[in-house]
Amino acid sequence: MSAYPQPAVLSPLQRARHLAEQFAETAVERDQRGGTPKAERDALRASGLLALSIPTQFGGLGASWSETLATVRELARVDSSLAHVYGFQHLMLATVRLFGRPEQWQPWFEQTARKNWFWGNALNPLDTRTVVKSFGGWREFSGKKSFCSGATDSEMLIASAVDESAGGKLLIAAIPSGRTGITLHDDWDNMGQRQTDSGSATFERVRVEESELLLDPGPLSTPFACLRPLIAQLHFAHVFLGLSEGALEEARQYTLRESRPWFRSKVQHASEDPYVLHHYGEFWAGLEGVRLLVERAAERLDDAWEKQHGLSAEERAQLALAIGAAKVAATRVGLDLCSRLFEVTGARATHASLRFDRYWRNLRTQTLHDPVDYRIHELGEWALNQTRPTPSFYS
Amino acid sequence: MSAYPQPAVLSPLQRARHLAEQFAETAVERDQRGGTPKAERDALRASGLLALSIPTQFGGLGASWSETLATVRELARVDSSLAHVYGFQHLMLATVRLFGRPEQWQPWFEQTARKNWFWGNALNPLDTRTVVKSFGGWREFSGKKSFCSGATDSEMLIASAVDESAGGKLLIAAIPSGRTGITLHDDWDNMGQRQTDSGSATFERVRVEESELLLDPGPLSTPFACLRPLIAQLHFAHVFLGLSEGALEEARQYTLRESRPWFRSKVQHASEDPYVLHHYGEFWAGLEGVRLLVERAAERLDDAWEKQHGLSAEERAQLALAIGAAKVAATRVGLDLCSRLFEVTGARATHASLRFDRYWRNLRTQTLHDPVDYRIHELGEWALNQTRPTPSFYS
Amino acid sequence: MSAYPQPAVLSPLQRARHLAEQFAETAVERDQRGGTPKAERDALRASGLLALSIPTQFGGLGASWSETLATVRELARVDSSLAHVYGFQHLMLATVRLFGRPEQWQPWFEQTARKNWFWGNALNPLDTRTVVKSFGGWREFSGKKSFCSGATDSEMLIASAVDESAGGKLLIAAIPSGRTGITLHDDWDNMGQRQTDSGSATFERVRVEESELLLDPGPLSTPFACLRPLIAQLHFAHVFLGLSEGALEEARQYTLRESRPWFRSKVQHASEDPYVLHHYGEFWAGLEGVRLLVERAAERLDDAWEKQHGLSAEERAQLALAIGAAKVAATRVGLDLCSRLFEVTGARATHASLRFDRYWRNLRTQTLHDPVDYRIHELGEWALNQTRPTPSFYS
Amino acid sequence: MSAYPQPAVLSPLQRARHLAEQFAETAVERDQRGGTPKAERDALRASGLLALSIPTQFGGLGASWSETLATVRELARVDSSLAHVYGFQHLMLATVRLFGRPEQWQPWFEQTARKNWFWGNALNPLDTRTVVKSFGGWREFSGKKSFCSGATDSEMLIASAVDESAGGKLLIAAIPSGRTGITLHDDWDNMGQRQTDSGSATFERVRVEESELLLDPGPLSTPFACLRPLIAQLHFAHVFLGLSEGALEEARQYTLRESRPWFRSKVQHASEDPYVLHHYGEFWAGLEGVRLLVERAAERLDDAWEKQHGLSAEERAQLALAIGAAKVAATRVGLDLCSRLFEVTGARATHASLRFDRYWRNLRTQTLHDPVDYRIHELGEWALNQTRPTPSFYS
Repeated sequence: MSAYPQPAVLSPLQRARHLAEQFAETAVERDQRGGTPKAERDALRASGLLALSIPTQFGGLGASWSETLATVRELARVDSSLAHVYGFQHLMLATVRLFGRPEQWQPWFEQTARKNWFWGNALNPLDTRTVVKSFGGWREFSGKKSFCSGATDSEMLIASAVDESAGGKLLIAAIPSGRTGITLHDDWDNMGQRQTDSGSATFERVRVEESELLLDPGPLSTPFACLRPLIAQLHFAHVFLGLSEGALEEARQYTLRESRPWFRSKVQHASEDPYVLHHYGEFWAGLEGVRLLVERAAERLDDAWEKQHGLSAEERAQLALAIGAAKVAATRVGLDLCSRLFEVTGARATHASLRFDRYWRNLRTQTLHDPVDYRIHELGEWALNQTRPTPSFYS
Repeated sequence: MSAYPQPAVLSPLQRARHLAEQFAETAVERDQRGGTPKAERDALRASGLLALSIPTQFGGLGASWSETLATVRELARVDSSLAHVYGFQHLMLATVRLFGRPEQWQPWFEQTARKNWFWGNALNPLDTRTVVKSFGGWREFSGKKSFCSGATDSEMLIASAVDESAGGKLLIAAIPSGRTGITLHDDWDNMGQRQTDSGSATFERVRVEESELLLDPGPLSTPFACLRPLIAQLHFAHVFLGLSEGALEEARQYTLRESRPWFRSKVQHASEDPYVLHHYGEFWAGLEGVRLLVERAAERLDDAWEKQHGLSAEERAQLALAIGAAKVAATRVGLDLCSRLFEVTGARATHASLRFDRYWRNLRTQTLHDPVDYRIHELGEWALNQTRPTPSFYS
Repeated sequence: MSAYPQPAVLSPLQRARHLAEQFAETAVERDQRGGTPKAERDALRASGLLALSIPTQFGGLGASWSETLATVRELARVDSSLAHVYGFQHLMLATVRLFGRPEQWQPWFEQTARKNWFWGNALNPLDTRTVVKSFGGWREFSGKKSFCSGATDSEMLIASAVDESAGGKLLIAAIPSGRTGITLHDDWDNMGQRQTDSGSATFERVRVEESELLLDPGPLSTPFACLRPLIAQLHFAHVFLGLSEGALEEARQYTLRESRPWFRSKVQHASEDPYVLHHYGEFWAGLEGVRLLVERAAERLDDAWEKQHGLSAEERAQLALAIGAAKVAATRVGLDLCSRLFEVTGARATHASLRFDRYWRNLRTQTLHDPVDYRIHELGEWALNQTRPTPSFYS
Repeated sequence: MSAYPQPAVLSPLQRARHLAEQFAETAVERDQRGGTPKAERDALRASGLLALSIPTQFGGLGASWSETLATVRELARVDSSLAHVYGFQHLMLATVRLFGRPEQWQPWFEQTARKNWFWGNALNPLDTRTVVKSFGGWREFSGKKSFCSGATDSEMLIASAVDESAGGKLLIAAIPSGRTGITLHDDWDNMGQRQTDSGSATFERVRVEESELLLDPGPLSTPFACLRPLIAQLHFAHVFLGLSEGALEEARQYTLRESRPWFRSKVQHASEDPYVLHHYGEFWAGLEGVRLLVERAAERLDDAWEKQHGLSAEERAQLALAIGAAKVAATRVGLDLCSRLFEVTGARATHASLRFDRYWRNLRTQTLHDPVDYRIHELGEWALNQTRPTPSFYS
C-alpha cells in the first residue's frame, strides 16, 4: 500500500495539488535528510502524472506544456526538489520527441505511460568527460558525468557523450537506467535541492544501440528541436515561481500566527506594522509580474509546440526571449523574497524545525544552473541590437 | 488648415501613431516652452480620438478601455503631457458615465462626439478650498482649486466642491469651461509634464444647475461607480509605460548611432559593451513585466466595465489590485530606466538639445500623483491580511 | 592538553587571528553539528582573550572597545557563532561595569581575569516570563527565558527578571551559572549561528542576593549606562562585517581556483569575466563603506567610554547614530554579498561539503536580533526631525 | 563694488560657506539661465580661494587637498556648477605642479595667487582632434576640443594636443586663455551642470612655446605625476557628495515646512509618516558611508601628496582604490537620493520655481564624466585578482 494514496478522479492540477499537500507534510524532514525521495517518486508514478505530457494516443494524459508546467509549479510550492525531477521527466520526454524519430519516441512514450517509467537526466553538454567509441552496429559510452538529476530510481536515462572522432560532436541516447556499465553515484549532497539526486554517474563501456541514439533530426537541429533548451529554461522559471509562492504563503501564515509586533511599532499585531505591510506589498507586486511573464511564456510555448516542424527561427527566438524575461524575473524576485521574508517573520522564524531557509537554499542552488548575467546579456542583445538568441543547450 | 493633417481611414491605434509621429517632431521644443499645446490639442480634436471611448450609439468610436488606453500609451511614447490630458479626456467622460444619470451623460457624450469637445479636470478631492452654497434650484461653487489638468482650452470641466452644510460631502458637476465665474490660471510651470496645463483655477460664485450635478448614483457610490479612480490609476500606468518605452527607444537609437565605446572596453562599438548590453537586458526584462501587468489590468477593466452595475465589490477589489501592481511596477521600472539610460548613452547625451532628461522629469512628476508607498501598503494589506483596497479617489 | 595550543607572546589581534586559523579548520563541520563548541570555548579561555576588555589593574588586558571588537570581527571571518558568544562575553562584562557599583564589578572582573570565566546572557528584556519575588535580604527569579546566548558552559550569567510589584521594573543580576534552580536547555537548533547556544533557560526559585543585583546606577540609568545597548549593536555590526569579509575571501579563493568561465563569456578564466569582476567590484566597494562606518563607530565608542559619567545625552545620541548607520550598512551589504556570492562561484559551489550557505544562514539569523526597518526609522527621525534615538535595550 | 562682498578674516572653509550662502540665493535662477556665472566667478577670485591649494611660499593659502576639496564640497551643496569649475582650478594647478618643472609652475603659482587667475580646462585626452605641429623653438596647436570646463572667463588654460609625428603622444601645455588663435565657444547647453562652461574650443595655429609644455616629468610619468587623474576623480566625489547633502537638506526643509501627510497615513504631519522617515533614514545612512569614504580618500591623498616623488606605485594604487570606492558610492547613493527625494516632498515639490530637479540633472550629468561600470570593474580587478588600477587620465 502506497504511503501516498491517490483519489480516483481528479484533474491533473488537482492531482498535483493533492500530491503537494501530502509532500508538504514531510518536506521539512526530507530537506534535512536529503537522498532519494523514494516514496514520493512512487506517489508520482502512481498519480499518472509522469505521463501528463504524453499525447493520449500513446496512453498519456495529453496535456499541453502550460498544463504540464502548472503542475511543476504546484509541486514547487511545497517541494522544489520533487518539482525539479518531475519537470525533468517531461523535459526528457520532450528530448526524445524533439531529437528522435517517431519510431523511437512513440514506443518509449507508450511504455512510459503504461509502466509509469521515470526518466532521469545524464545529459550535461558542458561536461565532456564521457566519450563515445563506435563499433559495427553499436557504440560504447565511457566516462564520468555530473549533475545527473533524477537519474537514481529512474527507469530510463537520457545520456550524452562526445564523439571525439567526429570533432567533438555530441551524441544523445535514451537508454535503460539499469544497463550494464552504468553506475549512478549516491553523491548528491548540496546546500539546496537536496532530493533531486543530481549526483554523478559513471559509464563504463555502456553499450548503446543505433536505435537508441537520437540522430534524426538530432540535437538542436531545427527550430522545433531547439525548443528543448527552452522547455528546460521555462521549467526552471516555473520551479522558481512556485517555490517563491510557497515561501510567501508560509511566511504569511507565520506572520499572522506567530510574529510579534516590534515594541517600537505602535501596533497591536505584526500584521498591522507599516514596514511589514510594505514588504508584503513588494513581494506580491513582484510575484504578480513573474506570474504573468511565466504564464505568457507557457502559452507561447504551447503555440510553438503545435507548429512542430513549421516553427520558424524567428518564432523560436521570440519564444526564447519571452522565456528569458520570465526566468530573469523569477530569479531576482524570488531570491529577494526568500531572503527578505525573514524580515516579516522575525528572529524566531529561524528555528531549525521550520527550515524556512530551505526556500533560499533551494532557489539559490537551482538558479545557478546557468548564469543569470548571461541570460540578461542575451536579452540585451535583443533589446539593443535586435540580435536573436543563439540556440544552445542553455538558451 | 491644421498643422497636423490626418489621413482619412485609420484604426484608432493607427491614428494615435500618426499623431505621435507628428507630435514627436516638436516634443523637445514644446517641453522647453511649456504652456498649452494648442495645435496638438486641435489635432487630437481633428483626429476623432476624443470620442474614442464613447459608444457608437452616441456618435463615438465605441472603443473598449484597453483600446482607449493603448492609444494613451502610444502618445506617451513621444509626449507624456499630451498623453496625460488625452487620457484624462476619457477619464472625465467615464466620470459622468459612472456618477451621473443616463439623461445626463448621453447628451454630453453625443455633443462631445459631434463637436469634438475636450474635457478638463477640476476635480481634486484633497483640495477642499472650493465650497458649495445651495440655492433654490441651483448651487454656487466658489474657491480655488489646484492641479486642474487639461482645463485650459477645454470645452467642458468636471469640477468638485465641498458642501460644508452636508458634513463636507463632495459634490461633482459637469459644466462648460467658459461659464461665468471660472478663471483658469495659466500658472502651471513644473519640472515635468510641462504641457498638461495642470495649473490652478478660481471659482467665483459659479452657478451650477441641479442637472449638472452628478448625484445619481453619485461619486464612489457603487462598485461600478468606484471604477472611476481605477481608470485614473490605470491611465497613469499606461502613461508611465509608454513614456518608458519611448525613453528606451530613444536611448537605443542614440547608443547605436552616437555612443562611443569606452577606451577600456575592448570593443569596437558601444553596442557590444558587456555592461551596456546588461543594462539594456535589464531594461527590457523590466518593461516586459510592466507590459504584461498593464495589459492584463486593461483586459480586466474591460470585463469589469461590461458588468456595469452587476460588478461586485470583490470583483472591483481584484481589479484594483491588478491595477495597483501594474502601477507600482510601471513606476519603479520606469524611474530606474529613465535615470539609468544615460549610462548606456554616455556624457554627450546630456546635451540640452536632446532633452533626454525630459523622460525622467516627466515620469518623476507624474508618479507623484499619489504616493507609491501607499499603493504598496495597499497591496501588502491584501497579500498579508486579504484586506480589500478601500475605494477612494486614489485607490 | 588543549586541542588548540596557543603561542606564548602575541598581541590580542594576533591571538584572535591564531584562534581564527584554528577554528576555520573545523568551522564547516561544527556548523553542521551545532551544539556547544566546547573545545573552542576552552581555547578562548586559554587565550586570555576573555579578559581582553578588563582593565589591567584588575588583571585584564586593558584593551579599548575598538581593539576588543576588532578581535570579534577577526573571529567572525571564520566563525560567526564563536565571534558572537565571545563578543557577548565583553558585553556582559560591560553590563556589570555600567549598571553596577565598583565593589560589585571589580571583584567580578578580577575573578574573570584570573579564572578565565566565560559569561553568558540571560537578559532578554522583551521576554517577560521570568518574574522576581522579594524576600528580606534576597530575591527569587522564576520563569522562562529565551535566546540565552552563550549561557551553556558559562561560569557567570547576566539574568533579568520583571518585578511586577514595582510596575514591571526590570531587575538585572550577575549570578553563577551553576546556581541551584537554573536549568539551561540544550535546545538551540537554528538555521544559522548554530553554535551560539542561544537556547532557553528555566529559573526555578533561583535565589539572588542583593549584592548580585545591578541597581546602582542601574540599567539604562545614565547616558553612560546607556552605552550598554550601543555596545551590543556595535558588536553585531562587527560580527556582520567580519562574516561578510570571510565570505568574500572564501568566494574569491573559489573563483580563482575552481570556477569555470561560462561558455558564452569569451574569456579563458572566470576571473576575467566582466560580470564576475563587476560583482566583485560591488562587493568590495560596499565592504569598504561598511569598514569605515564600523571603525569610526568603534573609535567614537572609545571616546564615549573614556568620558564615563561625564558622557552627555547628546554625545550618547551621536554615538547611537554612528552605530546605527554602521549596523544598517553592515546588514544590507552583507546580506547582498552572502546571497550573490554564488553568482561569482557558480553551481558547483553549492556542494554541501563547502557549506558556503552558512554565511547567508548565519548573517540572516543574526541580523534579525532587532528589525533593521526600525533602525532605519530611528536614523530617519534624526535625519529629518533631529530627534535623538530613545535609549532602550535595542537602541 | 562686487555683487558678493566678502568679510575680512575667515578660514577657507568659512569663506566657502559664506560664498555658498550668497550663491544659494541665485542658484535656481542661474540654473535656468545657464551661461557663465561671471559675478560668482569674480566673487571666487575676490575670496582668495583660487589660491587655496597654492603653497604659502608662492603666495597661496597653503591648504592641503582635504582642506581644498572640503571647500569644493561646501560649494557643491548649493551650486555644483561653481563647485566644479572651482575644483578644476585646483586640478589645473596640480597639473602644472605634477607634469612640469619647478621653474615652470612656481611663477604660474605666484602669478595665480597674486592676480587671482582662474584656470580653465582644455585637456581632453579622448578627444584627439587637436593636433600639434613642431617648429624650431615652438609648436602650434590646431583643432577642436570639447568639454572645456571653465575655459570661458579664465586667464590660463591647460590644453592638450596629439603629436602625430610622435606616435600620437599627448602634449600638454599651460597657456594664456587669450592667446591668438584660441576661440572658446559659448556653446555649453546641457541638461545639468549648466554654468560650468563646458563647451567647445577651437585652436587655430595657436603658438605654444617650449617653456609652456609640461614635458618634465610629463603626463602620468611617475606615480606622483599619476596623482593628477586621482585628484580629478576625488574632486568629482566631493562634488557628488556636496550636491547630495544639499539636496537632502533642501528636501528636509520642504518636508518639514510644506509637505502634507497623505490622507491614508494616520499621522498629523508628513514628518511623522513611517515611509517618509524610512526614506530619510536610508538617505542618511547612505550619505554617512559616502562621507567617510570621501574623507578617508582625501586624507590618503594628503599623505600621498606629501611623499612627492617618493610615492610608490603601490601606494598610488591603494589611493586609486580608495578614491574609486568613494566615487562609486557617491554616484550611486547620490543618484538614488536625488531621484527619490521627491517621494518625501510630494507632488507640489515639482514646481518649476523650486527647480528641485536640478540636483538630479546636475548629478546625472556630472556622473557621466567616465562610466561608473568601468570604475567598478577596476575595483573588481583588485578585489578578485589583486590587480592594481592602470593609471590613465580616467583612473
